[in-house]
Amino acid sequence: MKGDRHVSPLTLHRLSIYLRCLRSLSGEGVTTVSSQTMAESFELSASQIRKDLAQFGEFGIRGVGYDVDQLSTRLQSLLGLDRHHPTVVVGTGNLGSALIRFLNAQKAAFSVVGAVDNDQDKIGVSIAGVLVRPAEDLAEIVAETSAEVGVLTVPSQAAQANYDALVAAGIRAVMNFAPIRLRRAGQIPTRSVDLRIFFEELGFLLA
Amino acid sequence: MKGDRHVSPLTLHRLSIYLRCLRSLSGEGVTTVSSQTMAESFELSASQIRKDLAQFGEFGIRGVGYDVDQLSTRLQSLLGLDRHHPTVVVGTGNLGSALIRFLNAQKAAFSVVGAVDNDQDKIGVSIAGVLVRPAEDLAEIVAETSAEVGVLTVPSQAAQANYDALVAAGIRAVMNFAPIRLRRAGQIPTRSVDLRIFFEELGFLLA
Repeated sequence: MKGDRHVSPLTLHRLSIYLRCLRSLSGEGVTTVSSQTMAESFELSASQIRKDLAQFGEFGIRGVGYDVDQLSTRLQSLLGLDRHHPTVVVGTGNLGSALIRFLNAQKAAFSVVGAVDNDQDKIGVSIAGVLVRPAEDLAEIVAETSAEVGVLTVPSQAAQANYDALVAAGIRAVMNFAPIRLRRAGQIPTRSVDLRIFFEELGFLLA
Repeated sequence: MKGDRHVSPLTLHRLSIYLRCLRSLSGEGVTTVSSQTMAESFELSASQIRKDLAQFGEFGIRGVGYDVDQLSTRLQSLLGLDRHHPTVVVGTGNLGSALIRFLNAQKAAFSVVGAVDNDQDKIGVSIAGVLVRPAEDLAEIVAETSAEVGVLTVPSQAAQANYDALVAAGIRAVMNFAPIRLRRAGQIPTRSVDLRIFFEELGFLLA
């Protein structure tokens, strides 16, 4: 890709959607696809697809389109999905447990290698092969497992302290599911996921 | 809004993001905001914001920008968030339980009024005030509660049958969290959420 490493969250979101579309096409045995067909099948914008991909040096062949598997591999590598990203989950309530099971069932780039909680009833329990350890062990777990990604699934009021603990433990990126705005620490990439957003999009269709 | 009711999922996603930004600004006491400031604060594109909002008849005042509360109210209404959307959850495992607690803690437009499962251990349990009932009761629950939205949080292999059951029960929109592609039934708006997408976006920042 070109010099500037900065890509907006919306562009990343679209690249991830394109990859998902390509995987789905590949699963159906499709080998080449035009931006137009991709746009129509998945309700995207063809000109947006061309613009986004051109930004990363990908150009379709006029009248033929993109090679599905080649573009798929390229996007995977661009999104860092050809590497393993060990992940720790902080907070093993319903959402944390669901994410551990989900990620470890996918055999995907992100696999959960450790989990912590401060609830005595949860410590010592194993979720999809991951042992829940006390919150005080966080730094130790990050060091032992070389975890890169921290997932925050704690109640809102505990999110900031646990975020700070993840940063102090040397984690390289944070995914926050608590519905609060975190005070960011330094340059650690942090994404906050608000599950409401999906529902809100549905609201429009019901309006 | 203008005649054509069709708006792409990506546009809806952005409108929902704008609304979240506006709420956050409003919380900070900001009363007007330019597309440029909004773009910079939340890593969005200013021209995209102007284009998206113009599509719905919203124009900022040159040199002043948008009225935060007014635009916020307008987007809420556009997204159907000024109405109540009763929601049923099918599958009360970790993710289903997390969503029930999350939605019912928000006092938002989407509140869970019913839940079903086919696991005897879960039936009869109450989650955030919602009684889990047997899967056979689905149509009855939808009729009783006038539920509009169905949330699918069942294992992949059970998703299609439960989707069909929701449609048969007269639900008006479906949000699917199972990682499979559903065979769609008629014109019921259906969104599939793939939780991997968030992690994949983070991969880029770690690459």
